[in-house]
Amino acid sequence: MALKSKVQSVLISWWRKDTLLLSTSRTLNTFATGYDNRILKSPSLVSLDFPDEWTSSSTNCNAPSTNKLASEETGRVIDGKQIAEEIISGVAVEVERMKKKIGEVPGLAVILVGERRDSQTYVRNKIKACEEAGIKFSLTEFSDKCSEDEVCDAIMSFNMDPSFHGILVQLPLPQGLNEEKILDVLRLEKDVDGFHPMNMGNLAMRGREPLFIPCTPKGCVELLIRSGVEIMGKKAVVIGRSNIVGLPASLLLQRHHATVTVVDALTSNPEEITREADILVSAVGVPNLVRGSWLKPGAVVVDVGTYPVEDDSCEQGYRLIGDVCYEEASRVASWITPVPGGVGPMTVAMLLYNTLESARLIYNFV
Amino acid sequence: MALKSKVQSVLISWWRKDTLLLSTSRTLNTFATGYDNRILKSPSLVSLDFPDEWTSSSTNCNAPSTNKLASEETGRVIDGKQIAEEIISGVAVEVERMKKKIGEVPGLAVILVGERRDSQTYVRNKIKACEEAGIKFSLTEFSDKCSEDEVCDAIMSFNMDPSFHGILVQLPLPQGLNEEKILDVLRLEKDVDGFHPMNMGNLAMRGREPLFIPCTPKGCVELLIRSGVEIMGKKAVVIGRSNIVGLPASLLLQRHHATVTVVDALTSNPEEITREADILVSAVGVPNLVRGSWLKPGAVVVDVGTYPVEDDSCEQGYRLIGDVCYEEASRVASWITPVPGGVGPMTVAMLLYNTLESARLIYNFV
Repeated sequence: MALKSKVQSVLISWWRKDTLLLSTSRTLNTFATGYDNRILKSPSLVSLDFPDEWTSSSTNCNAPSTNKLASEETGRVIDGKQIAEEIISGVAVEVERMKKKIGEVPGLAVILVGERRDSQTYVRNKIKACEEAGIKFSLTEFSDKCSEDEVCDAIMSFNMDPSFHGILVQLPLPQGLNEEKILDVLRLEKDVDGFHPMNMGNLAMRGREPLFIPCTPKGCVELLIRSGVEIMGKKAVVIGRSNIVGLPASLLLQRHHATVTVVDALTSNPEEITREADILVSAVGVPNLVRGSWLKPGAVVVDVGTYPVEDDSCEQGYRLIGDVCYEEASRVASWITPVPGGVGPMTVAMLLYNTLESARLIYNFV
Repeated sequence: MALKSKVQSVLISWWRKDTLLLSTSRTLNTFATGYDNRILKSPSLVSLDFPDEWTSSSTNCNAPSTNKLASEETGRVIDGKQIAEEIISGVAVEVERMKKKIGEVPGLAVILVGERRDSQTYVRNKIKACEEAGIKFSLTEFSDKCSEDEVCDAIMSFNMDPSFHGILVQLPLPQGLNEEKILDVLRLEKDVDGFHPMNMGNLAMRGREPLFIPCTPKGCVELLIRSGVEIMGKKAVVIGRSNIVGLPASLLLQRHHATVTVVDALTSNPEEITREADILVSAVGVPNLVRGSWLKPGAVVVDVGTYPVEDDSCEQGYRLIGDVCYEEASRVASWITPVPGGVGPMTVAMLLYNTLESARLIYNFV
């Protein structure tokens, strides 16, 4: 008990420290920009940020592919659902062992702002998986009219609560809420989504290990490894460079020694570049962006995109489709992840894994 | 005076905080690795780190290029020396203004460990440039037999000294000294080299601005901008993925909306990839790795590599050659940086700029 209270007091000194970290990302942009023009010609980086606009897309792609097929065989499906279940079972065993040995279980706090249907579905899946694995779960919901301060206060209270080892803010946040400001409040040691810039920097830099690797990219690489796909020395193309998936996926694949190209909406000839890829990861949420003709025969295709389309035949009134035209791509690829049932379940499994890891680190539970 | 002492006390509370940050990069690798094998197949990231080994190279490349030349004209030379001088003059003007207005000048502390001849040259250039710009300079030298603790103690004393706004540890460190451990001691707010993982994460993530961008990549991009080279939508290839140059260069070019590919020593066909590049940045320190035949006609070539070769005709007994075979490349490229006199002086200019920026932020001097 004395040890536990010592751990808690160390953690509390950490929380206090973290709230100061707000000042370390440069928010004085107008300040810096006016000055940059005088000595340097380089603009501030945030002045370069604008939303990606992908040209054209279709929710249908049943037209025959014009690509020469390697064979008429269908690419092997990477069963993310099955692999995620195996991982969640593994987590459950460890949670049980922790409970027996030290009387504690990992705890995950999720904060959901607004009424997005897809976000609600994702959160529901996370709750279900936590129950399955024996992880304590808390959901805090806010309306999309709430203030940044309300969300920050909730995060700070979980920062202080030693029974929660992971905190996750379901993204995207409603417009008008400052994502950077909100995420910066979240304690690094509970950042099981791995979105803190310190975690991202440690993911990027050789010789370093982040506390947590973002769940979706980590899930993608785990799928590749479990499918026996060689990453080292291979050409990988990541479509999209979001902070949540595209960026960390490219960094993680680089750490695995792939030769990585990141394609964004400004790339003039994306299909030429993707046709060189041994491994293609697409994460933009544009339905059927990637056609069969975009792929090299035998490529491994990981489809992170999810886009909800109305479908009354589905229980929830909609179904999810991916970035990749599955019908076409499955005839060209050697391995392919389906949507749904590919990367999605892996994201949840990795979240549970990271939460367990966090509890293990905090309790020094080997 | 009261304000100044308040600033100092805030800074001191920052230093204290930073020493705790040591715990945020996961150093418990054996702990994590043994466990990863049970639930996940993914290895720990540092277990994937090994030194790049580039195959073959030559210090001579006068053989005629086999590449079809765009024309017999020579690519225009990007005069890094001249541009760096302009920037240093601009910094000097601002330093003078700061001195007049608030009676303070920026201060830079450099720590040099060991006897590397090239490191000594770089440090000498930094001292000279600081003198030129009116920046206060301090050099602390250690023998290569010193302990990590000695270096860390020196850093911590500069962390505490409010007259130094930038601290730089000249890399590489002698073998046996833990670079991560030493750099982690350095206060984020004085990390004018931009190598702290927090700065690297903020450089990588859209919507964020690092306190400092690493000097060499920042210098490369400034050279491109000043030469009127369009970056947005262009294909850029970065050869090498060191934490110091290759990685931050790729991140910075991405923030400028280039489509970036990072080539490393494991890439099977680097010359095929570089032949697609509109902009090529090479940063591996392998003399004449990049031949004329590696380039697309009209490409812009930024040569970061420096490799010392013995040359008695030079004052210092050696001269520097780059990664790029200049004779061949200059006949294919539209723009090219020479070695020396290209990126090297820009690195120094950017260091001075970052040091000035740091002092401006700390003194809130607009």
